[in-house]
Parts: sequence; C-alpha cells; structure tokens
Amino acid sequence: MKTLIVYAHPEPRSLNGSLKDLAVATLEAAGHEVRVSDLYAMNWKAAVDAADFGEHATSPLRVIPSSGAAFDAGTLTADVRAEQEKLLWADTVIFQFPMWWYTMPAILKGWVDRVFSFHFGYGVGVHDETHYGDRFGEGTLHGRRAILSVTVGGPESHYTDRGINGPIEDLLFPIHHGILYYPGLDVLPPFVLYGTDRITDGEFEDAAKRWTERLLSLETATPIAFRRQNFGDYEIPSLRLKEGLELPGRHGFGLHVRER
Amino acid sequence: MKTLIVYAHPEPRSLNGSLKDLAVATLEAAGHEVRVSDLYAMNWKAAVDAADFGEHATSPLRVIPSSGAAFDAGTLTADVRAEQEKLLWADTVIFQFPMWWYTMPAILKGWVDRVFSFHFGYGVGVHDETHYGDRFGEGTLHGRRAILSVTVGGPESHYTDRGINGPIEDLLFPIHHGILYYPGLDVLPPFVLYGTDRITDGEFEDAAKRWTERLLSLETATPIAFRRQNFGDYEIPSLRLKEGLELPGRHGFGLHVRER
Repeated sequence: MKTLIVYAHPEPRSLNGSLKDLAVATLEAAGHEVRVSDLYAMNWKAAVDAADFGEHATSPLRVIPSSGAAFDAGTLTADVRAEQEKLLWADTVIFQFPMWWYTMPAILKGWVDRVFSFHFGYGVGVHDETHYGDRFGEGTLHGRRAILSVTVGGPESHYTDRGINGPIEDLLFPIHHGILYYPGLDVLPPFVLYGTDRITDGEFEDAAKRWTERLLSLETATPIAFRRQNFGDYEIPSLRLKEGLELPGRHGFGLHVRER
Repeated sequence: MKTLIVYAHPEPRSLNGSLKDLAVATLEAAGHEVRVSDLYAMNWKAAVDAADFGEHATSPLRVIPSSGAAFDAGTLTADVRAEQEKLLWADTVIFQFPMWWYTMPAILKGWVDRVFSFHFGYGVGVHDETHYGDRFGEGTLHGRRAILSVTVGGPESHYTDRGINGPIEDLLFPIHHGILYYPGLDVLPPFVLYGTDRITDGEFEDAAKRWTERLLSLETATPIAFRRQNFGDYEIPSLRLKEGLELPGRHGFGLHVRER
C-alpha cells in the first residue's frame, strides 16, 4: 500500500500530530510506503489566485479556464504539481485534521481548492446524453481510497441523529461525497474522535488502539456505498435521483447512498 | 442600517465582484452605511497558527486557550481585532463568495477560523444544568442579521431535494447554523445564483434585479427559524432535540428548524 497523509494542524505535539505520527509508524511497520503532506510545515498557500496559473491566468481572472489551461500545459505551481503527483502515486489517502466550525481548517480547504484543479479534480471526461463528465465514482483518482481522521471538540451526542449540530455523516457528506468521491476516490467510513477538548491519557490509549485497527484494515474495509453518477441512477442532465430508487427512510444527502 | 460585506473572490471584475459592488451601491443609495472586508485585497491570512496569539500562545500550542487568553488581553493580531470591531459595529453582515467544492473558499474559511476566536465566536456564557453556553440563538453577535450571497457553477436541479449534490439548504446548513447562528446571528434565507459558469448578460440583469430586491428587504425579511439552544427544545447536556418536537417530514439538519 502507498499512503499519502494530508495533515493539517499547527502543533506537532497535538492530538492530531500524535494520530498522524501513529499512522506513519503503524503503516511503515506493516511494510507500507508512506508520504506526508504536513500543510503547516509546508506553509501551504491557501488562497486560489492568479499567481497559481502564471501566464495562463486570463485577464480578468476566470478561475476555471485558467486552471485548466495551466494544468494542461503542466505549468501549475510546483507546490500544486507535487501534491497532484503524490495523489497519483498513492493508492490510499488519509486526511488528518481537527473539525473547526463544522468542517476542515482553512489551510486544508486551500489544499483542496488549489490541488483539485480543472482537468485534474473536475472538468474531466465527456458530457453527452448519458454521461455528465467523469465524476462521482469515476475520475482522475478512481481506484484509490480515502479516509478522514477527524478530531471533534464536543461530545458525540451533539453529532447524532437528533443532536444540535446535525448527524456527523451529514456534516461530512460535502467532504466525503463532494470533495473525495467527486474525483473518483472510494471513501471509507471516517475515524472520528469526540470530546477532544479534554481527552485523558486513558482515552487517548483507547483511541490509538482503535485508529491502529482502522489503519491496518484500510485495504479491506468496505467503502461508503455512494451511487455512481453515470450508471443509471440519475436523470441526465438534471442529475436528480430517479424515482423509486431511494432506500427506506433516506432523505437529502442520504439518498445518494445505495445501500448500507 | 450598518452593513459589513465580507467578500471573497480574487478578481474584482468577476460576477462576485459585481454583486458586491451592486450591494455597496444599492445600500449606500438607500442611506445605509457600508463597510467591505475584501479578503483578497487585504491579503487575508487564512491559517490559524501560534503567531495569532503572540505571547499568549501556549507551548505546545493549544488553540482554544491561547485564542481565549489573547482575546481577553486584547492582543489578538490587528487584522483579527479589526474584523471583530466591524462585526460589533454592523447590524447586518453579507457574505459574498463563490461556492468552491460545496462550501466557501479557503480564504473565507480562514476569516471564520481566525475572527471567531474563543470568547468572541465561541466559549461565551455559562455552562450549567439549563444553559450550555451562549450559542445557537445567543452570543456575542446576537441582535444582528447575516445573509449569504453565493454563486454556484452548476444548475439548480443538482442542488434540489433529489439532486446529486444534495439540497442547497443542507449544504449551507453548516455555515448558516454552525458558523452564523452559533455566535448569535439571525440568518436570512440565502441569495443563491446558479449556473454561473456560463451566465448571459440577460441572466445577470435578472439576477441583479433580484439581489437588489433582497438587499432592500434585509431589515424586514424573516430569518430562518432555527431553534434556540437554551429555551427548552434540547436535552442538556446531550443537546439532542426532545422527542416529539420535530415538524412533520423533517430529519437530520431539518430538525433544527422550528417552523417554516
């Protein structure tokens, strides 16, 4: 297994840093290859702007065509090209980050915004009457797996079916489905650690054990069963789920999971 | 009315720039005061790190206590203090941004991550048997209103009840409820413009007219009826919605709206 860990926390001696270190040690001990993108250590540039596209930046700047032209010419900035190369090298991608304001930290969103360029992350494949681009189950990263390892300050009950923050699977859906499944990654159920604002040593030991088990089953775990876009479940081009396909009791984001 | 516009797009001559300019012109012509935080023009720093907290940064860095100590001492960085001052000055806040990967651009997420500091955006108020902090309907920004003005590249059908991306109100819930309602803002229904990858002049004229109407009704529009946290709807401290309170047909995020 070739694993890329994309890690976003400013403090190496943090819980997130410890979970990242544990992943590196566990996977390497099991004979796997591991590379780490430590976004804070890399001083990762978060904001998409004209400088990302060099001579291919249109004026006025239009992000999509500029991004596509620079990607096609191989002239995206070196930091972005390096991340794209790591993604193509990897067969498994781990994202290690704290949940801040119900989603990923800005520096990691900036990794997505810049690395998932046009013609790499989106704008791939043909559009016709039966096919709306290679995405949601197809795309550049098809055949690879991804998993989120997320620390959450609050208690788990706040993130359950009736919890005030909404269900964790719905909070993570825009990342799981909209960011990872979109360019073709298979998405494993997340590793979520709650109550991390005041975690005890004993709780950390337990969490480390559970994370180790998840790490050692990355190759065999069953991905979330998101529906593929171009294989009959959706009307094209409206991309609405066809009537009658929903599982009992599923609504909203849950419609796009075909089985559990 | 005193309106702060938080604007996140790298190109002034973009659709987002035009909508921001239209908001400034429309509100000023109507006699309102307007201030703009143009995050790209300000070269806004997106990543939370120890430099945000100066001498109050703990070592190892723990973000929450460091953030709270620097806020209490009035020594958060000048850029963050200026934004907090603008928020306290304003009675209405407009967020103008393109949807990138199903949420806000990284630079705007970095505005949230840094400006909504501990003791300002969260960690406000007492915790006891009946009150779980001043949040979700109470908090520092209580009494103010907020609205998202969002441009979306794809067509509206992709963002409907059965659309492949999920319903737009669910995609925006973590921002509406988790970021804006959390520190006390009342949240107006969003202004969402679809199909902006290829918008025509005629479509822009129509959109401008609709946005103008929304801008001129900011003071009178009815906010989304999110449930307040500390007024009986939730069990404390589990913060699960009490049984029987849900509206018919509501699930997940939708449970936390008390009426339509």
